[in-house]
Amino acid sequence: MAMDWQARLKEYLAPRTQLVNAALEDYLSEFPPLPRVLPEAMRYAALGAGKRLRPILCIAAAEALGGAAEQVIPTACAIECIHAFSLVHDDLPAMDNDRLRRGQPTVWVKYGEAMAILAGDALFAKAFELLAEQARLSPPERVAQALHLIATASGIHGMCGGQVEDILCEGQTISAEQLQFIHAHKTGALIRASVLSGAILAGADAAQQAALDVYSRALGLAFQIADDILDETAPTEQMGKPAGSDRAHRKATYPALFGLEGARARAQQAKQEAIDALQPFDTRADPLRWLAVYAVERTH
Amino acid sequence: MAMDWQARLKEYLAPRTQLVNAALEDYLSEFPPLPRVLPEAMRYAALGAGKRLRPILCIAAAEALGGAAEQVIPTACAIECIHAFSLVHDDLPAMDNDRLRRGQPTVWVKYGEAMAILAGDALFAKAFELLAEQARLSPPERVAQALHLIATASGIHGMCGGQVEDILCEGQTISAEQLQFIHAHKTGALIRASVLSGAILAGADAAQQAALDVYSRALGLAFQIADDILDETAPTEQMGKPAGSDRAHRKATYPALFGLEGARARAQQAKQEAIDALQPFDTRADPLRWLAVYAVERTH
Repeated sequence: MAMDWQARLKEYLAPRTQLVNAALEDYLSEFPPLPRVLPEAMRYAALGAGKRLRPILCIAAAEALGGAAEQVIPTACAIECIHAFSLVHDDLPAMDNDRLRRGQPTVWVKYGEAMAILAGDALFAKAFELLAEQARLSPPERVAQALHLIATASGIHGMCGGQVEDILCEGQTISAEQLQFIHAHKTGALIRASVLSGAILAGADAAQQAALDVYSRALGLAFQIADDILDETAPTEQMGKPAGSDRAHRKATYPALFGLEGARARAQQAKQEAIDALQPFDTRADPLRWLAVYAVERTH
Repeated sequence: MAMDWQARLKEYLAPRTQLVNAALEDYLSEFPPLPRVLPEAMRYAALGAGKRLRPILCIAAAEALGGAAEQVIPTACAIECIHAFSLVHDDLPAMDNDRLRRGQPTVWVKYGEAMAILAGDALFAKAFELLAEQARLSPPERVAQALHLIATASGIHGMCGGQVEDILCEGQTISAEQLQFIHAHKTGALIRASVLSGAILAGADAAQQAALDVYSRALGLAFQIADDILDETAPTEQMGKPAGSDRAHRKATYPALFGLEGARARAQQAKQEAIDALQPFDTRADPLRWLAVYAVERTH
């Protein structure tokens, strides 16, 4: 059974990851001769290694509703551009000051700070260009709904808001509530927007959206706790950044707050909540179920 | 006659500037208790002094087509948020390293670099949240068109692209073509998007969009040349930043390339081209005409 979901997830992911990578490559190659350097920096930031988790979630949610991957590709890639943008800005010297990401020099190390700020900005802009393109494939009212979700998840009510509190809390003792706020905003909001935008574009009704809202919040939590655990326990070569780097930054983490075993138990609980939320959906939602298991199991 | 357009423009601007400021104030006050500081930094960046030129252009274009200001307010404010975001990032130490803007400390001086980067990002995100809100007031197909225009104007094909070339050209001798590229992208693209998005939301047909395309490109050029001239000639207290600061940064400018008189002649030519492009429009386009005159006359 354990082998079963892993094999089926792998089989599910391969063609879809390829589809996303090909589309991203395509979207990030239509550049004019000027400006210089920026296209290269944007491609470096967005096309490198990466799980493509968010676009896959967008696609899997659309498919759970009976939609097709091809119909949500612009939105799926838009979300990946936003994810890449956030990593580029988070790595800047004024922010987390990280020199290494996925085993490679970060964008500011390779291209300089000014270019990194602008490559992030330009990827963010590209995301919304792609959302406008989505309106050629889907009813524009649904695109407007997806746009609202994704924009909200990226700004003060989401990613930016979480990053601000993360920075303000660095080196301080924080409560479980503060940790929960940081993660729900910094990473949870965009994961939720990935799932819900895919579902909305595929025509999800209010009840289906509500179920996927619960699923995506629990899934985001499971991924975040697991990431925190991996940061503590995995060797550097597996992470692509120094092990224990969160601790070195004095970042708040789940293991720091609850201990490794406490964190593992909370991840399991979040996984189960995610799977339970999918009860109303048929087997087309299986990839969403496998992803919830995967989120947690990769820490063992 | 000279007094006439000035008085009428003033009368036109007052209620619309007030409308934009009230809406911006409103849009930038719906913040939750967390995160800390970010709301204040966003408000500081977007609500300070400023001509609100871009939102006014969006409104004036909609009105030239028979639309109402209230119908395009979310988009008008979205564009102002994008303008504010670009100023915040341009002022950063890694970019132009400016400490003063409109006579006040820049955002990074007041709130630190990390908060300035994130306040810019969050204003950019807010802009697209507002564009999603526009879909409640306008046909979603039109909103998708405006979204595409505005996103394109903000990224590598517009603002970000122009800023990259501006930075790469600093301290170098550049050609008229390079200068033209920088300005058409760095400031021209968003001015064009302001005019065209207002027109599109108000239902402009292809011929009207083409005429306003010519108008907005010429207007953007007129404003930029005039800004360059003012940077050379106006006293510090009028500019809110040190006089000759472009020259101090060894920035490419029109007076540097063509001399003051040559630059003035080019500004006049651009003004005339803008006004000529409005020939198909009736008196409802008068504010757009006055703005073209204003762009240039303020340098005398």
